[in-house]
Amino acid sequence: MPRTSHPILGFEITLDRTSNITLDKQIAEAVRRAVQTGALMPGDLVTPIRQLAQYLNVARATVDAAYAELIAEGLLFSVRGRGTFVSSSHVCRKTSAAAPPAASAVQKPIADSTAVCVSALGYLMPQKNIPLAIVSTSADVSPRDFQAYFQRAAKKHLLDQVYDHPCGLPALREAIARIASRLRNVQCRPEQVVVTSGSQLGLMMAMMTLLNPGDRVCIENPAYPLLRAAGFLRGIDPVYAPVDAEGLDIEAAKELCPNPRAIFLTPSNQCPLGVVMSMKRRRAILDWAQVSGAWVVEDDYDSELRYEGNLPFPALYGMDHGANVIYVGTFSKMLFPGLRLGYLIVPEHLVESFAGMRLILDRQSHSIAQHAVAEYIQDGFYEAHVRKMRQIFDTRYHEIRELVERDWGDWGCFISGAQGMHVTFRFHNQAIDDKAVFEACLEQGVETRYLSSFYAPGSSQAMRGLVLGFGFFNREQMLSAVSRIGFVLRHRFAEFGPA
Amino acid sequence: MPRTSHPILGFEITLDRTSNITLDKQIAEAVRRAVQTGALMPGDLVTPIRQLAQYLNVARATVDAAYAELIAEGLLFSVRGRGTFVSSSHVCRKTSAAAPPAASAVQKPIADSTAVCVSALGYLMPQKNIPLAIVSTSADVSPRDFQAYFQRAAKKHLLDQVYDHPCGLPALREAIARIASRLRNVQCRPEQVVVTSGSQLGLMMAMMTLLNPGDRVCIENPAYPLLRAAGFLRGIDPVYAPVDAEGLDIEAAKELCPNPRAIFLTPSNQCPLGVVMSMKRRRAILDWAQVSGAWVVEDDYDSELRYEGNLPFPALYGMDHGANVIYVGTFSKMLFPGLRLGYLIVPEHLVESFAGMRLILDRQSHSIAQHAVAEYIQDGFYEAHVRKMRQIFDTRYHEIRELVERDWGDWGCFISGAQGMHVTFRFHNQAIDDKAVFEACLEQGVETRYLSSFYAPGSSQAMRGLVLGFGFFNREQMLSAVSRIGFVLRHRFAEFGPA
Repeated sequence: MPRTSHPILGFEITLDRTSNITLDKQIAEAVRRAVQTGALMPGDLVTPIRQLAQYLNVARATVDAAYAELIAEGLLFSVRGRGTFVSSSHVCRKTSAAAPPAASAVQKPIADSTAVCVSALGYLMPQKNIPLAIVSTSADVSPRDFQAYFQRAAKKHLLDQVYDHPCGLPALREAIARIASRLRNVQCRPEQVVVTSGSQLGLMMAMMTLLNPGDRVCIENPAYPLLRAAGFLRGIDPVYAPVDAEGLDIEAAKELCPNPRAIFLTPSNQCPLGVVMSMKRRRAILDWAQVSGAWVVEDDYDSELRYEGNLPFPALYGMDHGANVIYVGTFSKMLFPGLRLGYLIVPEHLVESFAGMRLILDRQSHSIAQHAVAEYIQDGFYEAHVRKMRQIFDTRYHEIRELVERDWGDWGCFISGAQGMHVTFRFHNQAIDDKAVFEACLEQGVETRYLSSFYAPGSSQAMRGLVLGFGFFNREQMLSAVSRIGFVLRHRFAEFGPA
Repeated sequence: MPRTSHPILGFEITLDRTSNITLDKQIAEAVRRAVQTGALMPGDLVTPIRQLAQYLNVARATVDAAYAELIAEGLLFSVRGRGTFVSSSHVCRKTSAAAPPAASAVQKPIADSTAVCVSALGYLMPQKNIPLAIVSTSADVSPRDFQAYFQRAAKKHLLDQVYDHPCGLPALREAIARIASRLRNVQCRPEQVVVTSGSQLGLMMAMMTLLNPGDRVCIENPAYPLLRAAGFLRGIDPVYAPVDAEGLDIEAAKELCPNPRAIFLTPSNQCPLGVVMSMKRRRAILDWAQVSGAWVVEDDYDSELRYEGNLPFPALYGMDHGANVIYVGTFSKMLFPGLRLGYLIVPEHLVESFAGMRLILDRQSHSIAQHAVAEYIQDGFYEAHVRKMRQIFDTRYHEIRELVERDWGDWGCFISGAQGMHVTFRFHNQAIDDKAVFEACLEQGVETRYLSSFYAPGSSQAMRGLVLGFGFFNREQMLSAVSRIGFVLRHRFAEFGPA
């Protein structure tokens, strides 16, 4: 199987010393032929001049002349201190067909699904990191004490950055099991933890591991748009069920979708409306899952943050001991979005399936980050940070509400609860174009999300409103942003304001 | 939409001072009812004793007694310094149906595809980091000077770990475009670079962005098993085409699969056979792609490493100016597998599609790592490291071949070339069970891959052999490992040895 090659040349050459063609030209021609037939390939080192001259029993100047000719025509090139090599571009120029016109590539079809992905990029792209983005970083909120853990891990575990188990670092899986228990009422064994790179991968893995293309899946409406996109990519058949003050309207869901294969929820902090799923509904969901055989996927994205002295609402997973529930958690909100770490908690008999899925999608998570987070949790800093963050966000939650109430509070009302990283404001006048408001705010240097973007396309009753972040910005920044929104509303959307 | 709640209590309560039931019991019952109806929810802070007593105009001791009873029965619990809360476990115990039997979860169906994923985990799982693993880390080979870059990035860019563009950090995209040009003859603009978390994600993204389920795709046989798994996950219709001494047998491929939507190749170092695709075949592939409209996906996984003075073989992408070729690159082999960084180079008109795909799969890559690698490349350390690694691997390539030749060289022959991170040894006696050899070697503490595992299931002519790593181990380690393999062969597989 290895290329047959002369020990010195890589190709055969016989010189005809009686010929009219000079020896240097014969040598050059032999090299050209060798390149054309593939006996010599681009990047190959050609025999050094002295060696070839010795082998062919010719003067070095003869070989030198042959090589010089080939270098001049671009077939060979010289690298000082390394040798003479067969070039690639020359081969392409002289031996291949004309370079295919770039235009032809445009006509090549790609996957159908990408058309929707591209068009949706507009409202799926990450927010700019300015007020009032929902998730960001800031010097006073973000865990700067994590830096030392990261740096220590980079030193201590540099050579531990190997191909590892797709479920993640054992120390991290243990740490996650512990905080899930302490903070979220999720009792599980470390073996049930599957490390991910965040909620999005967790949701995508749930879609791909639990569901077949064509499966009917019940999804809240409104919901996080990237969840719908994940479902679309998997090719599931989505049924969008309404949400009311108690969370998913289960009766409506059952009517629309009697036998879902899965139900995707955000029970602790409905995204984006901010309602908490009542205990009654939680029991009803679990009963429905039990009876219908549906999986429940619980996206618990920012539930450590609950204010006014209340403890975080316990996870749905904990009410069910994980029999029917897949739990999706993340460190993006509490640590850093760009850290790319999260986790799934799954029934033990499904761990292998999720492991195999992770391996095939992208193998595993980043080693150093896993070590750093595991130790950060083990040393108690994670929980201390959560407490600190909760305090700051509690203050800022009340501040943003106060600032909005004072400025344009009469334009609508807040419908979300005292928790999480966003507040949701519903406009009284539902004829307003909240997307236009969002765009006008962006022009004024204020980042928001518009509520109707969270509804599935074609929804008949998409609520109009704004979803605002607050936690990563101080009062002054929030005041400025809220003022600019007020300015936009009064100057561009006056007809939708209070009479 | 917010829960209707009494400003102090969260629920309604009317005391009947004429009743036989004592006031403390009435209070306790009211709290129980509030929990059952959901007016009070798990985690909620209940009104502090003093406040409730004042509100109800009762003695503090009365309220205290009510709470004590509820704490004793587990409905409430107290956290020193924080207050009294509604517990979750009690609610579950008393109000929900009996916990669903864990067994029922076992019967719930999951995606069909996972069955294959799980069964394949055996030969897809990462190797142990012992000789002769193909990709690993070691103090003398791995870039320990990268540590400083990582630590610096962790400090300088801690707060830059935000949600960012799915295509990756601009500085990294530029750095990649530069080294791709210098090292791989891949000319592209930074805008064509899509940062990934490694080859696997790159291949998966190619599958999902270029192809629809059911599309016919031509894949080399043998090939990297995780590539087949990615195709399976996407639901493509694979056609496995044979590989010979010049690479993919294009004539055979055309017969098996006249109009593929895509062709997946490893032209610079066929995985696992180690042959280099000849120039003739390269032109033929590009012509075929041009005529059939097929995409060519080039997995260029370890091509910086070519020995015996030869320069790395230029990429197929470069011959075509990217009109028909998607280039898949990775830093896993040259830096660290656990770093999780790689890249795709795609035609400009497809960047948005790949960006949208990345966003939906898992959003983006790890920020700190991107900063670190960008600077490492910019400062010239990456190329210096590649040169150093090439030198070490060159030496060890010759060592492993020499050691094997001396010990059990007469059992077969090497079919791979002087490049890359693995050598491929084909047994003369093709009746040998190479999987059994692999397992016996593992028992002896030696990691290998068995060649037949690289063939698609059901292949009629799967070659038997061993695929061995060498670069991360010194001569002593390799000698020990090679000896143990020899021991295994002679003692357990003697009948398959040389006569």
